[in-house]
Amino acid sequence: MTKGRLEAFSDGVLAIIITIMVLEIKVPHGTDWTALRPLLPVFLSYVLSFVYVGIYWNNHHLMLGSAHHISGSVLWANSHLLFWLSLIPFSTGWMGENNFAPLPMAIYGFVLLMAALAYFLLKTTLIRAQGPDSRLARALGSDWKGKISPLLYALGIAASFWHVEVAGLIYVAVALLWLVPDPRIGRSLAQEGTTEV
Amino acid sequence: MTKGRLEAFSDGVLAIIITIMVLEIKVPHGTDWTALRPLLPVFLSYVLSFVYVGIYWNNHHLMLGSAHHISGSVLWANSHLLFWLSLIPFSTGWMGENNFAPLPMAIYGFVLLMAALAYFLLKTTLIRAQGPDSRLARALGSDWKGKISPLLYALGIAASFWHVEVAGLIYVAVALLWLVPDPRIGRSLAQEGTTEV
Amino acid sequence: MTKGRLEAFSDGVLAIIITIMVLEIKVPHGTDWTALRPLLPVFLSYVLSFVYVGIYWNNHHLMLGSAHHISGSVLWANSHLLFWLSLIPFSTGWMGENNFAPLPMAIYGFVLLMAALAYFLLKTTLIRAQGPDSRLARALGSDWKGKISPLLYALGIAASFWHVEVAGLIYVAVALLWLVPDPRIGRSLAQEGTTEV
Amino acid sequence: MTKGRLEAFSDGVLAIIITIMVLEIKVPHGTDWTALRPLLPVFLSYVLSFVYVGIYWNNHHLMLGSAHHISGSVLWANSHLLFWLSLIPFSTGWMGENNFAPLPMAIYGFVLLMAALAYFLLKTTLIRAQGPDSRLARALGSDWKGKISPLLYALGIAASFWHVEVAGLIYVAVALLWLVPDPRIGRSLAQEGTTEV
Repeated sequence: MTKGRLEAFSDGVLAIIITIMVLEIKVPHGTDWTALRPLLPVFLSYVLSFVYVGIYWNNHHLMLGSAHHISGSVLWANSHLLFWLSLIPFSTGWMGENNFAPLPMAIYGFVLLMAALAYFLLKTTLIRAQGPDSRLARALGSDWKGKISPLLYALGIAASFWHVEVAGLIYVAVALLWLVPDPRIGRSLAQEGTTEV
Repeated sequence: MTKGRLEAFSDGVLAIIITIMVLEIKVPHGTDWTALRPLLPVFLSYVLSFVYVGIYWNNHHLMLGSAHHISGSVLWANSHLLFWLSLIPFSTGWMGENNFAPLPMAIYGFVLLMAALAYFLLKTTLIRAQGPDSRLARALGSDWKGKISPLLYALGIAASFWHVEVAGLIYVAVALLWLVPDPRIGRSLAQEGTTEV
Repeated sequence: MTKGRLEAFSDGVLAIIITIMVLEIKVPHGTDWTALRPLLPVFLSYVLSFVYVGIYWNNHHLMLGSAHHISGSVLWANSHLLFWLSLIPFSTGWMGENNFAPLPMAIYGFVLLMAALAYFLLKTTLIRAQGPDSRLARALGSDWKGKISPLLYALGIAASFWHVEVAGLIYVAVALLWLVPDPRIGRSLAQEGTTEV
Repeated sequence: MTKGRLEAFSDGVLAIIITIMVLEIKVPHGTDWTALRPLLPVFLSYVLSFVYVGIYWNNHHLMLGSAHHISGSVLWANSHLLFWLSLIPFSTGWMGENNFAPLPMAIYGFVLLMAALAYFLLKTTLIRAQGPDSRLARALGSDWKGKISPLLYALGIAASFWHVEVAGLIYVAVALLWLVPDPRIGRSLAQEGTTEV
């Protein structure tokens, strides 16, 4: 029951985050191609952030699917993650409307960095709540993606003040890295048959 | 469980998409009929898009109701569909506020086209995830609506630069075509008794 | 399953409708009481519409709780109801920002009237889907509230062009009439024990 | 079933409230640190309100998790709570955009006060619906936090017109007081094993 409402609330917040970002793509006044051109960076920022929020929803869902115990700390670690994710629409809008200027690019990376750390914290809290030798801890294993992502975000933040193109490439690269859902959790789920409905 | 959260997340995103479109109907400053008149194209665009999102919710729900296996590819094909649907409020607003100008009409059709292709991709991915001889594959059968709609949208896009009225008629016609929920899935569900609650 | 997603989607749309109305209460620039005063009609309109959407959620939930069969027509009758309810934020904002001017008052009543007719249509469709002698048909009985409300809304619309105060009183009176959840459904539910969780 | 939809609707409204607050953090036009500086009070207000809504979600969820009976009065007491919580985005925005001016600070406290009283009313209604000697009544016990919070909010409102810093400290202190989920309900749940999923 606790897990059900935690998932429902997270789904709601993530669904709203992913959707209000589209409000930043303001309807232009003109009706020709030149009216659309300034929207291109806004649109590209939207695509990138849509993918990121989709990745978080995907991994959040797989991780919680393997969990059996929810503690009070898990509830707060989850809210903490939602807090940083809720700043993505702002940082996306600021970056897109300013054509990928250095500081907005760095802040975008900072929000991603904090969300990644919050996700790591949630994972740790969740594993601790399952007790030793849990299925979740085994399924997650070494989690090299979760460890390398914060380093890459930090690199992206630094690169923002040097060459914004490099920062952008790093953010896109991390998204591609995560696009594939974690095979370890997927495999573990499949073995226990829980991907069947 | 996986299917439950996939449906809950999709329901959330679709509910928000359908509702934020209404924010494009901006409260006018005057209080007489002349203040309402410029809202007419915005309102008509809203009605059309409301029907389209309602159709997608309806068919999405019936299709997933017949599915028993969810794979990682299904999760991403679903997010891909939600991405294109999330652009409907923007394209609706642009079309409505510019009184059905050619380019906004074409972009509206383009978003519908991409959503239709994304839905086709989701259907294919979902059928593959069920394995051979699944109930879903049988229930969906030839799916002539799913095959003819992209062609009609493409026709609508071309017609936008010729006579916007023709493009509008095509978009309305496709919506009417889909308004009736697919009898094949409905029948299949009824036979197995799953429309009972 | 079908009923579950119908309820989830309706809950989502109603939750968003009730919440985006609050966005019409725009943050004022000043910081003293005079800055708040022009917000009073906006706030009062918000309270009234919040109560109306709350009533719809309440009754929608009780009515569907008594239903066992969902047909394709029910899905569309439900979307039709959500369409009219989705116009409440617009009509609320227009009415509140224009200090209860005649036409906005009449349009507000018109949206309520159409929502009431859509609810009646949903009820009829739902009863038909249950087959004869269903619990729902018995529970709903004569439904005098559902029959008198459209008449009162029509009266309110006419009164808007005569004395807006009278129209306002009628809209408030209908809300009060509905505030108590229908005892017949409640009693019927209690007898069959479904209010227990 | 009734409880399920009550929770789903509340989750939806709370998810939207917590997310639309972020829309008040308007994307600035500049791209340097000076462009971000005026956003600081808006951001701090957002953090505080995010924590408050998170607390309400947390406690709402734990309280309803212990309840077995839902009456019509509970439905309305719940809507009443959601009404006051829905005003948090407005009061947060007004406070943040005016750099913690006295009246906005007092109104912020007033909305928190009314939400606290509405939560107390919901708790009382819910306990009465469970009948005597219910698990919920035992689990909630004396509820000193629920009794002291309204007093502290009232103190904060008064302090707003004297020293806004004191009012701010009080609002932060009450949030910290609640940040830990109530151990009594948690313990009671754990004893009956319902925190397992």
